[in-house]
Amino acid sequence: MERLYSIEIKTNRRMEMVDVTGTVREIVRKAGIRNGICVLYVPHTTAAITINENADPSVRRDISRTLAKLVPAGAGYEHLEGNADSHIKATMVGPSETLIITNGDILLGTWQGIFFCEFDGPRRRKMFIKIVEG
Amino acid sequence: MERLYSIEIKTNRRMEMVDVTGTVREIVRKAGIRNGICVLYVPHTTAAITINENADPSVRRDISRTLAKLVPAGAGYEHLEGNADSHIKATMVGPSETLIITNGDILLGTWQGIFFCEFDGPRRRKMFIKIVEG
Amino acid sequence: MERLYSIEIKTNRRMEMVDVTGTVREIVRKAGIRNGICVLYVPHTTAAITINENADPSVRRDISRTLAKLVPAGAGYEHLEGNADSHIKATMVGPSETLIITNGDILLGTWQGIFFCEFDGPRRRKMFIKIVEG
Repeated sequence: MERLYSIEIKTNRRMEMVDVTGTVREIVRKAGIRNGICVLYVPHTTAAITINENADPSVRRDISRTLAKLVPAGAGYEHLEGNADSHIKATMVGPSETLIITNGDILLGTWQGIFFCEFDGPRRRKMFIKIVEG
Repeated sequence: MERLYSIEIKTNRRMEMVDVTGTVREIVRKAGIRNGICVLYVPHTTAAITINENADPSVRRDISRTLAKLVPAGAGYEHLEGNADSHIKATMVGPSETLIITNGDILLGTWQGIFFCEFDGPRRRKMFIKIVEG
Repeated sequence: MERLYSIEIKTNRRMEMVDVTGTVREIVRKAGIRNGICVLYVPHTTAAITINENADPSVRRDISRTLAKLVPAGAGYEHLEGNADSHIKATMVGPSETLIITNGDILLGTWQGIFFCEFDGPRRRKMFIKIVEG
């Protein structure tokens, strides 16, 4: 039996970190497996997934701003679509995260949330959630 | 039954992003499993794997150039082999990616390709492909 | 049968890369499975895991220093706990790594070691090791 799910994410700004923790958690709980792993994967080249603090939203803004400072938009890139910086940020953060499933739920630290990172929004995006029992 | 494969990659420049999408895809298709995950892993400390745009090669060049600008070669590092910058880039991009397998094939977005990132070439390199059914 | 393990890590400085290769290797060997994968996961938002050179300790120091230069502490962040830079570094390096298990052991390159990255120490930290057979 294949346990592969997908969700849609609507982003509203060029750079944005969308909290998807609740959605991922619900999918994993409903999948009904007790132990395993869960691979989150974005099929995009200007977006990414990260895990970071879910309590103070200023952390997310600091992450976005710092990435924007390190890799500024329009800084003389060769790629002509105006989103070279978005592609570079996507590689720096990465398109996937692998989570541990225990007791039928994802194993997250107290302050950890899962964030879809938009680097070239606003757009309609997708994220895959693949569960492997074991 | 163990499903572990390896490929050789020859790089030609100090920094280079080699498209390995076709090779990985072929290995996964031949493995003959329908659903699961696929872990790509480089056993090197000055190379990495990333997923990014496969259409316009200028994206790859922008990624390499930006990493080279953020972490310049020869910028007063303690490590004396002349490749401290390569090690740092390897940690920033990461030595592995986990892909989803569905319908006997890897699940990639329309514009996604898999790239072996050389940060200290030219060299002969290796990449492992591990498939887990589930 | 669930194969989930955890280890405690004591860090001594604000930024530090702790070699956990031996500990991970011992856990995997004792788990007694022949083939599979091993997911390392830190349940923290100001720490990370990376794989890099285990021979010359200067590589670790160069990585820490370069990250500290790219994302300086106290550089006008919005997050008021004084560790915004630590959160950003955690996202840049990432909270997990997936290793391949073959022949009952983790598959590492000759020069590869596994490092717990502390970005806001000194603290007592935790790392999970999840093994999936296959």
